[in-house]
Amino acid sequence: MASRFPTAVYARRLARAAQLAASAEVSALVITPGPDLEYLIGSDAQTFERLSALVIPAVGDPVLVTPRLELASFAESAAGELGVAFAPWVDGEDPYALALATLPADPVVAVSDSMSAGHLVPLMAATGTAPRLATDILRDLRMIKDAEEIEVLRRAGAAIDRVHARMGEWLRPGRTEAAVAADIAAAILAEGHTAAAFVIVGSGPNGADPHHEHSDRVITESDVVVIDIGGPVAPGYNSDCTRTYCFADQPTAVVTAFDELEAAQRAAVDAVRPGATAESIDAAARDRLAAAGLADKFIHRTGHGIGLSVHEEPYIVAGNDLVLQPGMAFSVEPGVYFDGEWGARIEDIVIVTDDGCESVNKQSHALTRLPAGGNQK
Amino acid sequence: MASRFPTAVYARRLARAAQLAASAEVSALVITPGPDLEYLIGSDAQTFERLSALVIPAVGDPVLVTPRLELASFAESAAGELGVAFAPWVDGEDPYALALATLPADPVVAVSDSMSAGHLVPLMAATGTAPRLATDILRDLRMIKDAEEIEVLRRAGAAIDRVHARMGEWLRPGRTEAAVAADIAAAILAEGHTAAAFVIVGSGPNGADPHHEHSDRVITESDVVVIDIGGPVAPGYNSDCTRTYCFADQPTAVVTAFDELEAAQRAAVDAVRPGATAESIDAAARDRLAAAGLADKFIHRTGHGIGLSVHEEPYIVAGNDLVLQPGMAFSVEPGVYFDGEWGARIEDIVIVTDDGCESVNKQSHALTRLPAGGNQK
Repeated sequence: MASRFPTAVYARRLARAAQLAASAEVSALVITPGPDLEYLIGSDAQTFERLSALVIPAVGDPVLVTPRLELASFAESAAGELGVAFAPWVDGEDPYALALATLPADPVVAVSDSMSAGHLVPLMAATGTAPRLATDILRDLRMIKDAEEIEVLRRAGAAIDRVHARMGEWLRPGRTEAAVAADIAAAILAEGHTAAAFVIVGSGPNGADPHHEHSDRVITESDVVVIDIGGPVAPGYNSDCTRTYCFADQPTAVVTAFDELEAAQRAAVDAVRPGATAESIDAAARDRLAAAGLADKFIHRTGHGIGLSVHEEPYIVAGNDLVLQPGMAFSVEPGVYFDGEWGARIEDIVIVTDDGCESVNKQSHALTRLPAGGNQK
Repeated sequence: MASRFPTAVYARRLARAAQLAASAEVSALVITPGPDLEYLIGSDAQTFERLSALVIPAVGDPVLVTPRLELASFAESAAGELGVAFAPWVDGEDPYALALATLPADPVVAVSDSMSAGHLVPLMAATGTAPRLATDILRDLRMIKDAEEIEVLRRAGAAIDRVHARMGEWLRPGRTEAAVAADIAAAILAEGHTAAAFVIVGSGPNGADPHHEHSDRVITESDVVVIDIGGPVAPGYNSDCTRTYCFADQPTAVVTAFDELEAAQRAAVDAVRPGATAESIDAAARDRLAAAGLADKFIHRTGHGIGLSVHEEPYIVAGNDLVLQPGMAFSVEPGVYFDGEWGARIEDIVIVTDDGCESVNKQSHALTRLPAGGNQK
């Protein structure tokens, strides 16, 4: 059974979701397993080829369509305690008709963005209308974290900070990225996460690929190493924090570029406040790096929202004129990437407050120098 | 990098997929990360909010649309070696337009069933036409395993058999299901899997829930215990095998019902041959149990196809008149479930041969009695 918030939290969220469905003029939200379902009823059910779906009509009571086999696990979710009606089905029955049974004819449904095409295509065939994304309708609800969620994000931030604080235990020249990553993954669990969702160890030239995970490359004493790590903390909210390390004096060009990166990250964090746009935060980091002649070294967006998903709205990217509001949580993570040579990134998760933001990550942003030798595992 | 088959295997599959797209009269297959993509180019890329998609037109050459950030990982797939054209994009560009750029106007696309609604809804908006499921079009290709795949399924079967053979090391009265499951998971890895995808330890009344995973229940000496385990073996093909265990003499009613289950499982396996329908295999097991008065104790379908997905076509279920062909691989796993009391299931993976089938699992089907005491961990 997934750990979850008190049931009253989910009652509030379900009521609000129905209101949003009515405002958006859709017949119903149809939510399959994934972060939206976890948000609404505290169920961490997985998606299978058999349809499970929470149907939240704009008018009327929600229904949870589920294979009879999975009834027990949903009964343990908040849906069980809240008395949501269950519509179980068995192999051979048509679950899509069942999901639409209480809706008006030709319903316009809005589906969770994690719904698979394997379910969406037959659901569309049954409705005869084009679906919308429930993610858009639930956006404000899920983007603005409530007090319970913010508290978990703080715990997640503290947990991943403790892993970075211990980095010198594992990160040393002579070891492979993969060996270091295995130790970090164990520490992510030991420090209170329920899983090690991702562990990036990008040493030397591998640090120049933002999506490098880890490899059998042996780390050398002259390397700059990017460590980007995180995972979920119960009940399911994620940490995500990047720091950059080295073991020896670095060339002036590296030190200078890193200083500019640190300033760019700080400029972006300083720009976060209610009323600012998402794109303005991206611009704050990007403009600072451009002024230092590093525009072409920063090859990705500045950040992404975080919560039950590691990546969710709001996306901190050029072209996103979304206005920030208190309770939004996202990463601020500019990087500089010198192809074939080295890379660096600094990432904190921030939560928008009434007059600025709070960072849940507290470890130093510096290019942290770790001991190079001795005591090797 | 994912391990994969020789590149020629993927060249053959890509060519066949294009032929099937043409036969099905769709403009293109649009395949996002998941089992279909792994099948076609040997990439185990994950789905993210940024679109990656292999576009296989009915006429013309395939194109791989990918965020620039993920270009390196796709270059390592068979797509790289085969010279598939890459269409990289960066944040702010429209990847859906890019995916459709080389197709005729108002294209009918067929999408992989693992594509998320978050990608499918905007893709549909860009095409203006209703999508189909590529899974249907690729069905014959993926259902009929080639010699390379069959060899991996045999290795997977042997690996999970070794875990069942060692069950007495961990499964003992006085331990919790969760503790036993943790040991089994470690053994699944130790015996050659790349992950422990699922570990069901259903003791006593928990065995009566086919989807029970494991719990803190302490196993007792009088329990019947269902153990259903599996995971992927490189390059990604899954094992899945269930056996039922006990520690003491069982009441006659249990012994009798288990004997009927064993006969039902054997009857289903004996019915497997080219030309038989999927539903006839289900009926063979179901009729045998019904004749013994156990019809209402067998509450799920008889089996599911297996390969890169743990559950895929063909589904061995009432109403599926699909005709079996050599090379199809699926589970045969009837069970009996006595609510609140006990349950049992026997599961082998079989591969259809020219004149019957081959089981990749060789461990005894008996209700296996393990030692009850001493030497407890």
